[in-house]
Amino acid sequence: MIKFTPCSSLSGAIVLQPRMVQASLSAQRDEVIGRHRTNVPRNVSMEKLQNGYLFTEISRRKLQHVEKYPNAKLISLGTGDTTEPLPDFIASSMAEYAQALSTPEGYRGYGPEQGYEALRKAIAETFYKDVLVKGTEVFVTDGSQCDITRLQLLLGSGVTIAVQDPTFPAYRDSGVIVGRNGDFKDEARKCRTIQYMNCSPQNNFFPDLKTTLRADIIFFCSPNNPTGHAATRKQLEELVEFARRNGSIIIYDSAYASYIMDDSPRSIFEIPGAREVAIEVSSFSKFAGFTGVRLGWTVVPEELLYSNGFPVISDFDRIVCTCFNGASNIAQAGGLACLTSEGLEAATSLIHRYMENAKMLVDTFTSLGLEVYGGANAPYVWIRFPGRNSWDVFSEILEKIHIITVPGSGFGPGGEEYLRFSAYGNRKCILEASDRLESLFS
Amino acid sequence: MIKFTPCSSLSGAIVLQPRMVQASLSAQRDEVIGRHRTNVPRNVSMEKLQNGYLFTEISRRKLQHVEKYPNAKLISLGTGDTTEPLPDFIASSMAEYAQALSTPEGYRGYGPEQGYEALRKAIAETFYKDVLVKGTEVFVTDGSQCDITRLQLLLGSGVTIAVQDPTFPAYRDSGVIVGRNGDFKDEARKCRTIQYMNCSPQNNFFPDLKTTLRADIIFFCSPNNPTGHAATRKQLEELVEFARRNGSIIIYDSAYASYIMDDSPRSIFEIPGAREVAIEVSSFSKFAGFTGVRLGWTVVPEELLYSNGFPVISDFDRIVCTCFNGASNIAQAGGLACLTSEGLEAATSLIHRYMENAKMLVDTFTSLGLEVYGGANAPYVWIRFPGRNSWDVFSEILEKIHIITVPGSGFGPGGEEYLRFSAYGNRKCILEASDRLESLFS
Repeated sequence: MIKFTPCSSLSGAIVLQPRMVQASLSAQRDEVIGRHRTNVPRNVSMEKLQNGYLFTEISRRKLQHVEKYPNAKLISLGTGDTTEPLPDFIASSMAEYAQALSTPEGYRGYGPEQGYEALRKAIAETFYKDVLVKGTEVFVTDGSQCDITRLQLLLGSGVTIAVQDPTFPAYRDSGVIVGRNGDFKDEARKCRTIQYMNCSPQNNFFPDLKTTLRADIIFFCSPNNPTGHAATRKQLEELVEFARRNGSIIIYDSAYASYIMDDSPRSIFEIPGAREVAIEVSSFSKFAGFTGVRLGWTVVPEELLYSNGFPVISDFDRIVCTCFNGASNIAQAGGLACLTSEGLEAATSLIHRYMENAKMLVDTFTSLGLEVYGGANAPYVWIRFPGRNSWDVFSEILEKIHIITVPGSGFGPGGEEYLRFSAYGNRKCILEASDRLESLFS
Repeated sequence: MIKFTPCSSLSGAIVLQPRMVQASLSAQRDEVIGRHRTNVPRNVSMEKLQNGYLFTEISRRKLQHVEKYPNAKLISLGTGDTTEPLPDFIASSMAEYAQALSTPEGYRGYGPEQGYEALRKAIAETFYKDVLVKGTEVFVTDGSQCDITRLQLLLGSGVTIAVQDPTFPAYRDSGVIVGRNGDFKDEARKCRTIQYMNCSPQNNFFPDLKTTLRADIIFFCSPNNPTGHAATRKQLEELVEFARRNGSIIIYDSAYASYIMDDSPRSIFEIPGAREVAIEVSSFSKFAGFTGVRLGWTVVPEELLYSNGFPVISDFDRIVCTCFNGASNIAQAGGLACLTSEGLEAATSLIHRYMENAKMLVDTFTSLGLEVYGGANAPYVWIRFPGRNSWDVFSEILEKIHIITVPGSGFGPGGEEYLRFSAYGNRKCILEASDRLESLFS
């Protein structure tokens, strides 16, 4: 075991902003027994949600650990949370916009629900220049996790969905919340409306489409969270062809596209024919460190039609106007700054820094002889621990070397035996984490 | 008719930030006929939505008008959009926070989904000091319109709801989106799950609870948008008693509470027994001019229980963690500044300025002998035009004196014969609007 010498420079990474947990809820529940109860039934969809939300559960365990070892220097390689300060140019742009809100010339009230035209246009021109997405097809929002729920509202509970396994749990959970059954086991599969498409090293992290049933909606995240695999052009061509043949809609999550270092596609719209079968959600969170500032977008092409010929973009526009009221105008000013040449250069430099971290983690695990995936086109490193329960490995690493990770099974049954390590963190933390991992596993 | 002399000082109010309209969608629809269609059915709930969203329709007509009269000085007394610059102290606080995001000490990634603890606590202590709401019962969000949809998701499509008539259309529309039937006429009332509670001068803008059927959920907005009526303490006591007797949950929208000038309650939690039957949504939008900054909150008391005894707050916490990712941290810094003594003083001063506008409009309409409501505890003035169709009066005022209003029927059948006039606007615009209204109606 290594010693935990004080390391003040690590403080930036230590339980930076622990996500608030309603830890005392069950205690509160007991207290109120016997008091007035309404006659309103609990939403059956909420009852169906399995356990707590993954990252909330991790926060809970993190807090427990901090209580148990108040002096340990905890390092978080868990939640994919950006840690490096914003480039000055981008922060200054937001500061100037915020300050100007105190002047008659600079004040703005409600903006367009879909986002300011200049930003919609800049997103289209920066990320989709070669694939001809129009500014009017870009909806600026407060982030892709929120957009996923809005897309679930758009589509309703009547559609079937397929998700990668493993994958980001919000696709499944938000689908359950809007009324779908989320479990394989539900009523002897009769009501199974969520299909899990296994993505593992055996199939190069791409589902076997020959055995995949048709689904109305295919959620597809690339580079994938958690495996870090960026789908190849050939894989995405197969996916688009599969969707076209089946009349499916792909909801493509490209939140990590800016971390792609090889020639894998950065947008589903690089694939011919995708405009008629795909929606893309994306974000400034990981691209520019806006996890707390909150800014994302969704592209809905005009050509995407429901079976009755009605354009999906019209209904999404209605959802955005009725259920949302636009992203914060200050965040939008920051987004616009990110898309200038100065902003893009600064954002790219940050991404490279995180990817150097990823390489260090990959090198560490490789040198330890572990089975290593990801880390080349994404800030996530995906490590296999054959035959082991992923929550057990999570607990062992936390208990012995005070590092927070994410257990793979939290991303679906296909994540069992794996852990996800995030490359976010300042350099000293990554180096220290590498040392501790070497002590534990060598 | 009055003349429209150039009035450069009005420019601040002229189509300030027209909400983007997908005006060309139907044209685009025609273009794409014959192309690939998916086999995904359009969500039947989206099909059920009546017409467009009210404020989107008004924006559409506003744009048409501007095209027709490019030189007219349009004044908007339509959308309730704040127009006065933010107090310098509040804007500076946000600017400082944004600038500090470029430093290692000031950078923040993901915050707690429920909002930063300091802000939750400040909201509890500022707005709910005497009614003992805890910080942990306050969920900080991007605004009350968004929270209304999150509450619909929380409750699901299986509950019945009642709404005031007239009222803010998002309660009904978001309920339809999550799967409820929204129309009286649906399938010969068999599927009627939304009940409209008439609120008119005849019943002092409070529903006749003797003839109101039990509903699981009662949406209640006070001060009401659009009528401007602030429910009295006695009325709210009746409402809470009605909810307790029926086992209903009240969703109380207090977004305009800071405009109450008399001793009407500013929160439903001022009423004894409300903590076991009510949720409150509220906002910094109208309180502090944050319509574009985006910040609101929802209070879910621990004592509020479903029929099976499960606490509602646990499920709402799950919704917030799964479908939302926290309000922008810069906006939260602004919210915290609003709740200091300096911020509160500045916000109150802005509110008084808008309420002076409201009084000017009330005086104008009163002098014209019209039937005038509201404007005393809310920034909305509600005028009756007996026997007339409200869209017709809307069009006449727009066509003849170039003022945008909101037709009452957009808020429900009980709004027919009425128009809503917003008191937001700079003083010169309000004076000019008063002059034009006098020319038209005297």
